[in-house]
Amino acid sequence: MEYLPAPLEKLVEQFARLPGIGGKSAQRLAFFILSLPQSEAQAFADAIVDAKKSVTLCPECCNFTAGGLCPICSSPKRDSSLICVVADPRDVTAIERSREFNGHYHVLHGVISPMNHVGPDDLQIKALVDRVARGGVQEVIMATNPDTEGETTAMYVARLLKPFDVRVTRLAYGIPVGGHLEFADDATLMRALEGRQDI
Amino acid sequence: MEYLPAPLEKLVEQFARLPGIGGKSAQRLAFFILSLPQSEAQAFADAIVDAKKSVTLCPECCNFTAGGLCPICSSPKRDSSLICVVADPRDVTAIERSREFNGHYHVLHGVISPMNHVGPDDLQIKALVDRVARGGVQEVIMATNPDTEGETTAMYVARLLKPFDVRVTRLAYGIPVGGHLEFADDATLMRALEGRQDI
Repeated sequence: MEYLPAPLEKLVEQFARLPGIGGKSAQRLAFFILSLPQSEAQAFADAIVDAKKSVTLCPECCNFTAGGLCPICSSPKRDSSLICVVADPRDVTAIERSREFNGHYHVLHGVISPMNHVGPDDLQIKALVDRVARGGVQEVIMATNPDTEGETTAMYVARLLKPFDVRVTRLAYGIPVGGHLEFADDATLMRALEGRQDI
Repeated sequence: MEYLPAPLEKLVEQFARLPGIGGKSAQRLAFFILSLPQSEAQAFADAIVDAKKSVTLCPECCNFTAGGLCPICSSPKRDSSLICVVADPRDVTAIERSREFNGHYHVLHGVISPMNHVGPDDLQIKALVDRVARGGVQEVIMATNPDTEGETTAMYVARLLKPFDVRVTRLAYGIPVGGHLEFADDATLMRALEGRQDI
């Protein structure tokens, strides 16, 4: 990298710190930026500054929004008595893609993970409890990932919500649609059997 | 994507136009930018603008440089009578990594590719011819990639350099070090046989 001029090397370093971008990819991306017309490179830089400046958290659900309530929280068509709790804004996108859910969301922005020094206070858990305490919520669906940290977080939040008159549920475990029984792991198969339903 | 606030969606689009970055990666990168402190997001944007603004082409070898001659062209330790011609600035980095080459470079910024509407005039070929015409060059090594377009470009440049009193060579073809004969393709094996050397 010592053969690159300093400003270019700086740009490569910036790209290299992005998640999933290694040294070679970072170089390719930086070189691509140099190949852009001045105006387009400027537009890229502006998009970064602009997004960082104008995107805030929705005061209701803590999802990303461009100021004020997010489109979902402010939509009169959505059922505000149903809250789906997810770890990450990307999970909202995933669930919305299924077009199956018509309630509101709550984004925790992470999961409880002592290994990574993330405790309950680092997440938007208090905002969720306050929201339920204000009333009007009938069901909270815990939709964190089905791994240890996601489970722990779901259990922790469920316990906090116990004092309120609200149903707390968890996404179903089972064989993924299109999956093969022979490749399913033991834990998934066990959960699929436990959760069997009448047809 | 309709669930993302406009400035965030714009940032996702900017990332998605980078080479090798798909829709999901672009979203992950944009969300990562949002998770950065304001100052670091600003630093990223500044690095883009700064690199684009201050990085120019070396007037001698056309490699990227931060104004003036590049470090290689201005180094008194390098042999200016030997020019290695590459298609891309990244190829300079690759060859420098081998620590085997002590001459100068010439970066064409592409290869002749009628399919992609890239002709000789879109490349830094004239700059190379001018450089050789000025004298002082004894050998030009064509180090474009060993594919059809790289070959064509090498042949084209070699023909242009014929009138000058300069040796034009091509990188050796053969079995890559650590490779297996059984997996080598016919063309590579044929070239390896043709180029056999005494031991």
